[in-house]
Amino acid sequence: MISDHRYTKITGGYWKDKIDLNRNVTINAVYDRFAETGRIDAFRCDWKEGLPNRPHYFWDSDVAKWMESVAYILDAGSAPELEEKVEAIIDNIEKNQGEDGYFNIYFTVVDPQNRFKNRDWHELYCAGHLMEAACAYYKATGRDRFLKIMEKYADYIANVFMVEHSAAFVTPGHEEIELALYKMYKTTGEERFFTLMKFFLEMRGQPDNTEVPILGNIRYAQSHAPIREQHEAFGHSVRAMYLYSAMADLAGETGDEKLLEACRDLFRDVTSRKMYITGGIGSTCIGEAFTIPYDLPNAQAYTETCASIGLAFFASRMFKADPVKRSIYADIVELEMYNGVLSGLSLDGDKFFYENPLEIRMRDRSRITATGDRERWPITQRVKVFGCSCCPPNLTRFIPSIGDYFYAYDEEAKAVYVNQFGQSEFRCGGAAVTQETGYPLDGSVKISSNVPVYVRIPGWTRGRFTADAACVVDNGYARFEAGEFTVKFEIEPVLVAANANVVNDIGKAVLMRGPIVYCAEGVDNGGDVHTLVFDRTLLSEAVTELQEQFPAPVITVPGLRLKASDELYAPLGEQYERVEIRLIPYSCFANRGETDLLVYLNVR
Amino acid sequence: MISDHRYTKITGGYWKDKIDLNRNVTINAVYDRFAETGRIDAFRCDWKEGLPNRPHYFWDSDVAKWMESVAYILDAGSAPELEEKVEAIIDNIEKNQGEDGYFNIYFTVVDPQNRFKNRDWHELYCAGHLMEAACAYYKATGRDRFLKIMEKYADYIANVFMVEHSAAFVTPGHEEIELALYKMYKTTGEERFFTLMKFFLEMRGQPDNTEVPILGNIRYAQSHAPIREQHEAFGHSVRAMYLYSAMADLAGETGDEKLLEACRDLFRDVTSRKMYITGGIGSTCIGEAFTIPYDLPNAQAYTETCASIGLAFFASRMFKADPVKRSIYADIVELEMYNGVLSGLSLDGDKFFYENPLEIRMRDRSRITATGDRERWPITQRVKVFGCSCCPPNLTRFIPSIGDYFYAYDEEAKAVYVNQFGQSEFRCGGAAVTQETGYPLDGSVKISSNVPVYVRIPGWTRGRFTADAACVVDNGYARFEAGEFTVKFEIEPVLVAANANVVNDIGKAVLMRGPIVYCAEGVDNGGDVHTLVFDRTLLSEAVTELQEQFPAPVITVPGLRLKASDELYAPLGEQYERVEIRLIPYSCFANRGETDLLVYLNVR
Repeated sequence: MISDHRYTKITGGYWKDKIDLNRNVTINAVYDRFAETGRIDAFRCDWKEGLPNRPHYFWDSDVAKWMESVAYILDAGSAPELEEKVEAIIDNIEKNQGEDGYFNIYFTVVDPQNRFKNRDWHELYCAGHLMEAACAYYKATGRDRFLKIMEKYADYIANVFMVEHSAAFVTPGHEEIELALYKMYKTTGEERFFTLMKFFLEMRGQPDNTEVPILGNIRYAQSHAPIREQHEAFGHSVRAMYLYSAMADLAGETGDEKLLEACRDLFRDVTSRKMYITGGIGSTCIGEAFTIPYDLPNAQAYTETCASIGLAFFASRMFKADPVKRSIYADIVELEMYNGVLSGLSLDGDKFFYENPLEIRMRDRSRITATGDRERWPITQRVKVFGCSCCPPNLTRFIPSIGDYFYAYDEEAKAVYVNQFGQSEFRCGGAAVTQETGYPLDGSVKISSNVPVYVRIPGWTRGRFTADAACVVDNGYARFEAGEFTVKFEIEPVLVAANANVVNDIGKAVLMRGPIVYCAEGVDNGGDVHTLVFDRTLLSEAVTELQEQFPAPVITVPGLRLKASDELYAPLGEQYERVEIRLIPYSCFANRGETDLLVYLNVR
Repeated sequence: MISDHRYTKITGGYWKDKIDLNRNVTINAVYDRFAETGRIDAFRCDWKEGLPNRPHYFWDSDVAKWMESVAYILDAGSAPELEEKVEAIIDNIEKNQGEDGYFNIYFTVVDPQNRFKNRDWHELYCAGHLMEAACAYYKATGRDRFLKIMEKYADYIANVFMVEHSAAFVTPGHEEIELALYKMYKTTGEERFFTLMKFFLEMRGQPDNTEVPILGNIRYAQSHAPIREQHEAFGHSVRAMYLYSAMADLAGETGDEKLLEACRDLFRDVTSRKMYITGGIGSTCIGEAFTIPYDLPNAQAYTETCASIGLAFFASRMFKADPVKRSIYADIVELEMYNGVLSGLSLDGDKFFYENPLEIRMRDRSRITATGDRERWPITQRVKVFGCSCCPPNLTRFIPSIGDYFYAYDEEAKAVYVNQFGQSEFRCGGAAVTQETGYPLDGSVKISSNVPVYVRIPGWTRGRFTADAACVVDNGYARFEAGEFTVKFEIEPVLVAANANVVNDIGKAVLMRGPIVYCAEGVDNGGDVHTLVFDRTLLSEAVTELQEQFPAPVITVPGLRLKASDELYAPLGEQYERVEIRLIPYSCFANRGETDLLVYLNVR
């Protein structure tokens, strides 16, 4: 059993910089945008028809995630001005909570007659995010006012859905409350929240309930089958991740082998057939959804930031739930941390991507078509706020809670898992572990521990590492006895290729360095990245250089550029010129104006 | 000046087979479908609201093209049962022509109050096709009843548009009548038809006329600029081709250098930046239109059959109009003949493609998306009839008139151009030329001529040929003196690559043999063509074999197949297995059930 009572401190390096940026810039930028757009004041519940800033039915969740983010910041140190803002919001929630316990802005001031009438209106999703925030805030401050409010709300929901059956649907259209109720249960110890969580999970996809297909397709919200009979990832990718996370919570809590097997199948389906090399998932904008296996177009990748965060949630819960601690779970978390998640945030910390494409070609945006451009493309520059603003506060909560992914204490084995690498300290019960490392800039990790340690050997190493102490390797972990030792991973540029089933990437490769996916941007490569070609024989001449503007090194590698001729078609006799290909970490793309982007380069 | 009075007979080989198939199968299949759908009876003009088969505003043109097709068949021999059908239709046209000369089914029986009110309703387009049919039928039969009807109609149109200005628009939304009026002028010798043709051409894109943007974009119907200021191909590709054809007719007739230069620019823009290797043009289904240069996606290529035929029209007119007889014009005609045009017709002659993609992946059609499949894909099997059925009768008229593209007599030079190759005879004035050849199955062409001959050296030869007589080569033609001689082109499999600006084809190649583009189909290659890889070092081992079901050889070439691993991403170390890659002529794809298709294969 992995302990939930733990303390991690990120003491320096890559993630300390990100945490500081979040604390100093991002958290305030998101609050300011939410205040400007009326989301904060909406909690006063005094909006009336005719006033500006009509509340949207997902606004509660946006602000709740921001409140949860502040809780994680408070975990690491004081932040009175943020705490004050959270308290002011809680004041409003307290004031406007119904006698019955209900709290929802939209269904109080905009559409009160439709409470719990429409499965797709995010009502339980908003409740779930408020509950997550309440749990985190209680843990950070020890004050239970918010938690008590949400307990009362959860009890009301249990009454509506489990006793009165007075809602027009049985399970939420956008999953989230399930994992939140599990947090309520773990935070309060109250079985009744676990019962409600199980109710929502077990009722999902049952043939005799009153689920309504959402947007025309019952798979969209994963309602096509009971949870134990779900083995392939379908539908809206964020909803799927939140559901699978809760399924893993339940499987971990109960040891339900059949449910765990469904979770393993879903995890395997996502990570071995439906995930971009960046960790991005949900390849189509149509429904923000999964499509068919290996369907991973680069330029029109949807790959929502929230979906990457959701996969990190699912993966970290699978690590806890699965008795076989396989390093693949933490591998996926790492892939998301450095690539699919972080690409959602600008380097200066106040702008965001909702979608994270793997290819941009500005030329394609200027297609001149007869009837106007009906094609949908991801935006090419991060923006300060979205109408649908789920991703920014998901980033502000993911980053300050990053330490939760670093370590885990196994109470039976009385050993610590080191799942992620970075300058940090960990305490849990009597166990104490520290890491000294420049990871991911270099691959040397010095670990001190007073208990045995399982060190993850990252998948990207293909099992190669050195250590100055004895260890036993199993399932991708090297077990070391208590003491001080150094593990070294060789962090060098490597060309990685996709499975041949990903037909659009055949003949192409991606440069990775450790866990970091690299990309070529036009601004560094004379404007045109699409004609660049990796030459595998020249990879050893790559030069790695740390530049102040980027958190990980820039890589310059000699390669080729295919020259365009005057002819549209000519006998194959590729004309190449030798060029230096300049690559930056994928997560840093689109920070220097609009420019072309390519992750998969042709290779020869 | 190229003479219009000429006689060509296709006496055997590849095109004789196609002409016979058209005569015996296709022409009847199209008639039967038109009869079944009410198109033939619609000429009785007795449809009333409530009856089935409500006439569509482009039905006149469908049947007119079929009538024109019969005229070309009659040129080559008697066909009384077809002639009878044409006469019956002419009876109805004669009976239902207005006192004023007007004839249009839709605006007579469906929407009589809107005559010449809407620029996009194909009214003048239908008139143009009827005029083309009338000219061809007069030439074939010597009977002028139909021609006189259309003369009267043309005079009425001239009165409406040039005298009364009573139409709601100035130039047609779908060009076609311009080139038809030129044929009327050349057939009758009446200047007034040339005047009306010039009117429609010269008024197009003039800032002070009353053109209305069609479907939101004035470029869609090439109305964005006066004709001499059009230098890039925009908008609906078939409309563009018909317009450019008429522009070339006008430039050839008048010697207008500025107009000719615009035509050259348009031809260059299309053929060097916006044309598939198959000759297909109009890469997007959105508006059936041109997009930006080098934007040539393979799976979602639109590439309408009519557009390929239209480009052959434009190219053949450029050959006539341009005093510098460059072989590129006839090269493009040849490319269309063997690829982009013929792919529109099934091998059994009674089914058609409107769109001609260069890639099919059946897997992609089964994408499971949340909100249903909103993507648009070309169909994968030819069908017997379309609602919008412009392409089938365009094929039935193109094939029997194929001889018109073979030869041209230059009255000043008193020499014959041999533009296309095949078993055939040509007479014009006193000139007489015959070809004996198995082209394109082999590359040996024996020519006998009583006048000097310019023999096209096809672009695909890259200028390489041998001859057993002296010649002078210029602009892609070899000039031989009168006599008998043999020219030999080396017809061998060659790998051809697209310009590096076509970024989706980088790293790929197409196998061509002479003028014929080849493709791989799943049915010949174990289902999966996308993982096949050409190995350029093995190309010399290609085996060429004629099989009865295909009009040109099948080619088997040793190559590679990229093996899929269990991993989604792995260090680059491509695992290939050696395989035999089986290729068929592109024009023959989709004749053996639904199966994957690929024209561009990866190459190493």
